[in-house]
Amino acid sequence: MRFFSDNAAAAHPKVLEAIAAVNRVDTAYDGDEWSQRLDHAFSDLFRTEVRAFWVTTGTAANCLALAALCPPYRAILCHRDAHIEVDEAGAPGFFTGGAKLVLLDGPGAKVTPDAVSAACDAIRDDVHQVQPAALSITNATEYGLVYRAAEVTALGEFAKQRKLALHMDGARVANAIASSGEDLADVTWRAGVDALSFGFVKNGGLNAECLVLFRSELADEIAVRRKRAGHLLSKGRYLAAQILAMLENDLWLDNARAANAAAQALANAAPHRLIYPVEANEVFLKVSAEEEERLRAQAFDFYEWGPGQIRFVTSWDQRREDVEKLAAAIASL
Amino acid sequence: MRFFSDNAAAAHPKVLEAIAAVNRVDTAYDGDEWSQRLDHAFSDLFRTEVRAFWVTTGTAANCLALAALCPPYRAILCHRDAHIEVDEAGAPGFFTGGAKLVLLDGPGAKVTPDAVSAACDAIRDDVHQVQPAALSITNATEYGLVYRAAEVTALGEFAKQRKLALHMDGARVANAIASSGEDLADVTWRAGVDALSFGFVKNGGLNAECLVLFRSELADEIAVRRKRAGHLLSKGRYLAAQILAMLENDLWLDNARAANAAAQALANAAPHRLIYPVEANEVFLKVSAEEEERLRAQAFDFYEWGPGQIRFVTSWDQRREDVEKLAAAIASL
Amino acid sequence: MRFFSDNAAAAHPKVLEAIAAVNRVDTAYDGDEWSQRLDHAFSDLFRTEVRAFWVTTGTAANCLALAALCPPYRAILCHRDAHIEVDEAGAPGFFTGGAKLVLLDGPGAKVTPDAVSAACDAIRDDVHQVQPAALSITNATEYGLVYRAAEVTALGEFAKQRKLALHMDGARVANAIASSGEDLADVTWRAGVDALSFGFVKNGGLNAECLVLFRSELADEIAVRRKRAGHLLSKGRYLAAQILAMLENDLWLDNARAANAAAQALANAAPHRLIYPVEANEVFLKVSAEEEERLRAQAFDFYEWGPGQIRFVTSWDQRREDVEKLAAAIASL
Amino acid sequence: MRFFSDNAAAAHPKVLEAIAAVNRVDTAYDGDEWSQRLDHAFSDLFRTEVRAFWVTTGTAANCLALAALCPPYRAILCHRDAHIEVDEAGAPGFFTGGAKLVLLDGPGAKVTPDAVSAACDAIRDDVHQVQPAALSITNATEYGLVYRAAEVTALGEFAKQRKLALHMDGARVANAIASSGEDLADVTWRAGVDALSFGFVKNGGLNAECLVLFRSELADEIAVRRKRAGHLLSKGRYLAAQILAMLENDLWLDNARAANAAAQALANAAPHRLIYPVEANEVFLKVSAEEEERLRAQAFDFYEWGPGQIRFVTSWDQRREDVEKLAAAIASL
Repeated sequence: MRFFSDNAAAAHPKVLEAIAAVNRVDTAYDGDEWSQRLDHAFSDLFRTEVRAFWVTTGTAANCLALAALCPPYRAILCHRDAHIEVDEAGAPGFFTGGAKLVLLDGPGAKVTPDAVSAACDAIRDDVHQVQPAALSITNATEYGLVYRAAEVTALGEFAKQRKLALHMDGARVANAIASSGEDLADVTWRAGVDALSFGFVKNGGLNAECLVLFRSELADEIAVRRKRAGHLLSKGRYLAAQILAMLENDLWLDNARAANAAAQALANAAPHRLIYPVEANEVFLKVSAEEEERLRAQAFDFYEWGPGQIRFVTSWDQRREDVEKLAAAIASL
Repeated sequence: MRFFSDNAAAAHPKVLEAIAAVNRVDTAYDGDEWSQRLDHAFSDLFRTEVRAFWVTTGTAANCLALAALCPPYRAILCHRDAHIEVDEAGAPGFFTGGAKLVLLDGPGAKVTPDAVSAACDAIRDDVHQVQPAALSITNATEYGLVYRAAEVTALGEFAKQRKLALHMDGARVANAIASSGEDLADVTWRAGVDALSFGFVKNGGLNAECLVLFRSELADEIAVRRKRAGHLLSKGRYLAAQILAMLENDLWLDNARAANAAAQALANAAPHRLIYPVEANEVFLKVSAEEEERLRAQAFDFYEWGPGQIRFVTSWDQRREDVEKLAAAIASL
Repeated sequence: MRFFSDNAAAAHPKVLEAIAAVNRVDTAYDGDEWSQRLDHAFSDLFRTEVRAFWVTTGTAANCLALAALCPPYRAILCHRDAHIEVDEAGAPGFFTGGAKLVLLDGPGAKVTPDAVSAACDAIRDDVHQVQPAALSITNATEYGLVYRAAEVTALGEFAKQRKLALHMDGARVANAIASSGEDLADVTWRAGVDALSFGFVKNGGLNAECLVLFRSELADEIAVRRKRAGHLLSKGRYLAAQILAMLENDLWLDNARAANAAAQALANAAPHRLIYPVEANEVFLKVSAEEEERLRAQAFDFYEWGPGQIRFVTSWDQRREDVEKLAAAIASL
Repeated sequence: MRFFSDNAAAAHPKVLEAIAAVNRVDTAYDGDEWSQRLDHAFSDLFRTEVRAFWVTTGTAANCLALAALCPPYRAILCHRDAHIEVDEAGAPGFFTGGAKLVLLDGPGAKVTPDAVSAACDAIRDDVHQVQPAALSITNATEYGLVYRAAEVTALGEFAKQRKLALHMDGARVANAIASSGEDLADVTWRAGVDALSFGFVKNGGLNAECLVLFRSELADEIAVRRKRAGHLLSKGRYLAAQILAMLENDLWLDNARAANAAAQALANAAPHRLIYPVEANEVFLKVSAEEEERLRAQAFDFYEWGPGQIRFVTSWDQRREDVEKLAAAIASL
């Protein structure tokens, strides 16, 4: 039973249908009506004018945004455990042309204004040290914590003060919103976010992610950078259709709710073992080596996350019976 | 009726089926069995050990290969009309970290050893001038000409002499092979090709291309570069499955033959108007402005290719009746 | 007798004195008063507010300017024989992060608005092709031709229309001004030049060149890029002092006049052999192999410049008797 | 009285003489006999075949070396306080094309095999994380500590085991050798160092540093990278001559000994205040704000180095009376 990553989940049937539905359409690149409809669909969702760019990976979404927000000779502040730092093979360095990541600390991979402030203050303002240009946060974080609108707003205000752009890696932003029940707009552009990597692949998409840009003056640059990085697919309609299917009737929210509920079920099975509060679809538990072994013996598939720690990630398509089995197994450890 | 690009064609039903068939499989990135099977499948096809990497665009395939074959401080020789020069937004410069393209001339975008030799000889061998490291050719060329094995071999021998790596942009290599009837192996690695961008998207794929590497010592570097460029999809099985479907029972060849046949039908309609011999699935015609207008009035969709020239590209899914209509229309100009 | 390059000339005694004079001064980087005085000195010379940055090579001056004027995903237009294209080892690609050079034709390495216009018009305005961002011209050109203010103005107007930045590689701008007698301001910023690489090393400097920036809003970026490229010397006062010595009492003009006069003397010796008009300090002659040999036999050191062509470059420190000997030798061929 | 940096010291008279002595020599770039003699001179000094490249800054020497030792998609391990991390404006990212610096801890900016080992072990060996390719250490460190041959050897052995290249930033390697009395060869190539940035500017040079390469197979690449980065000066003889003057009769050692002796004199004045042992030419002291003020009031110029800490750097040309005055002032705090 797969609990190691939402990256391995299936695509939702609506997504597959949407792909099939655009098969016989004579358009190339992003000239199709579905791609053309994206700006509008996301502007509706966010209730402000946005520009939306399909790509196939979160790394591409993150790093295209960062390249537009940070020149090669400046720095991006992010948490030490941020995906862009630990899991993208140095892609920010590649896309930006050598910008630096300055690493912040904080429990659960969460960034606070204090941490950002301290990092900024430690940088001498001269040409010898790399000056920061952007802050990137992940929502939900790599440990499944959720930023509330007020938290993002505080970061956004600080960023504005220091003239830092603000990027949100939203690989699991759907889970964050499903969890907090807050308004997407409040958690993003109203809070000062300049660009959002809106994740769909972990949440029922097949291979479409979306870079949502709240600063339209950067749209032309993003469009060129996407092409230049080999991310302008020649049959883009298949990506646009996936995304539109995910937006329709809030499928993205439904899927995220399902994944979150599964995580809650696991969390409830052994609250005293939780390393972080379970706010989205990730569950980190303290277990002994022997306990871990017992779980594996029951065919549960998950990651060890350092000594004595294991991680479960639940998905939109998690079977109820699997979740119940795992919850019971955890409870009975 | 769409004749402007094979980029706009549909995905083949077998490809859609293959995607659906791998939907409920619990694997991430390229850990699935389909991705794992690619090396073997292409090694069989080429009858030599190769390493195969799925990507989603020809630009990614081309430029990942070029980045591994040419250091940032050297140059890639290619035709002035090569896709990497005119249609990839400078992607080679991005992926290589600033390597230079040195442009060659030659009718029909075809490169000859003489042209390469002249270009090399014009470069002073000192640190002031950028020394060439690789040659990239496109087969079939951007004007639909096909390199025969003997031609590639001649280029390969020259490349070897001058210590140049040899890359083949095979966005339409299927059409080239379908046309020449030659052996894939003879046209590629036996002729000295180090890396091939094997195109599937123009030929019935949905969004999977394949970088086939004949120098396995570069495989680790390519794998990292793919990830770093945001081209390691988290659900790679959908790409691998597409490619395997295209290889099965030589679907790639059947599709290419269909596209080529359609082009031949058009070519036969007005042989005296042909600007280049029609060897693959592209047809360039001389027409007057008024003639062009007449074709457009009949709902044929195609590109103007400079003054007095138009281009048709046929696809695997071109409807026979559309081809017949267009052939008749051309004949009656 | 050295006639192969002004790169090999001596440093002027005033320059050596200036270096010695700042030896015992306790400052690092560009914190010294000489470095601080540069902006003012060049603002006086150009009669407008400028920012001036010492560097040690023309390549650094050129490419720092180009990196600030052209993003990595766009192109720089320049002549096919421009130093940045043929003699800087691909430095523009390195400094800009992969921007492309689009090559223009024109006799004597001179660029005309028509050539620029044709090149721009050939670029489709879409994301597939690299859009131009800057134009770079060399004054005097690589073949010793001089741009008059009116010519630069015409280019500047075109550049403005097309939103291209304008850079002037002035490795020999002193020779150009000495030749035309025009006003530095008219040939540069009043004509629309955004940044000038003001050459001193070929003209009596030891190892200091100067990047003169007419758009002060780019100064901070240039300062950082200079440091990041390893071009912020820790004892910058030795560079600033050289440059100030060259400006004092128009030593730069005197030196350039001396070099130009020597070139004129050679040109007058065989006007019918001239390949280009001699406007600055370079002389290109048609000679037979046997004639070339005769000159070499008399211990004249110069470059062969393609078959049947030779190049002489004269310097500020050319000994009169050497020039007379060479002129006589040419005349008597 | 200047104690804030050896970067601000004078050039040694022998260096100035050497520059003057090569003024009237007709050569360009590194074609002169002095530049040509460098390989030999350093091979003698190191008693092994080396290749030596003049450059004008330590940043250039460091980053040219690192670019040849680490591909863009890998990482360089270095101390958190290393000059390449904190004082070169991100130059390693620029020169390497985006390689990452992985930061190590350790008192006095000194790196131990344990710290390197822990950092390496924390990196998962897959394509998602950036794999290390090189280790860079600074000798003497940024806090004036000296690596002994045995320490470098231990690091070299570890590096070899893990297939890491080893770079030494020797901005103050002269001070290190003067301090330890060990053999240059033992501290560098015999200990496994692949490339050394041999500093001269802080030690009596005017503006010449030297990159000494112990792996000659990288020499061609370094030569091209130097040119491409704008660091191939057109009158290189002035740099070569400086370096040769510094090597002659071990002037580099004499100067370093003088600087070290001055530092010792300061250290002896208040041993209980020392934050680090004084092994080279840097002295870090604990002082109160009021004490700091008292020193400044006596016209001593130095850096504050965090709260309650001040730094003195002594130079080859430090006047004995200034040192005595400062020592007395410190002693009497």
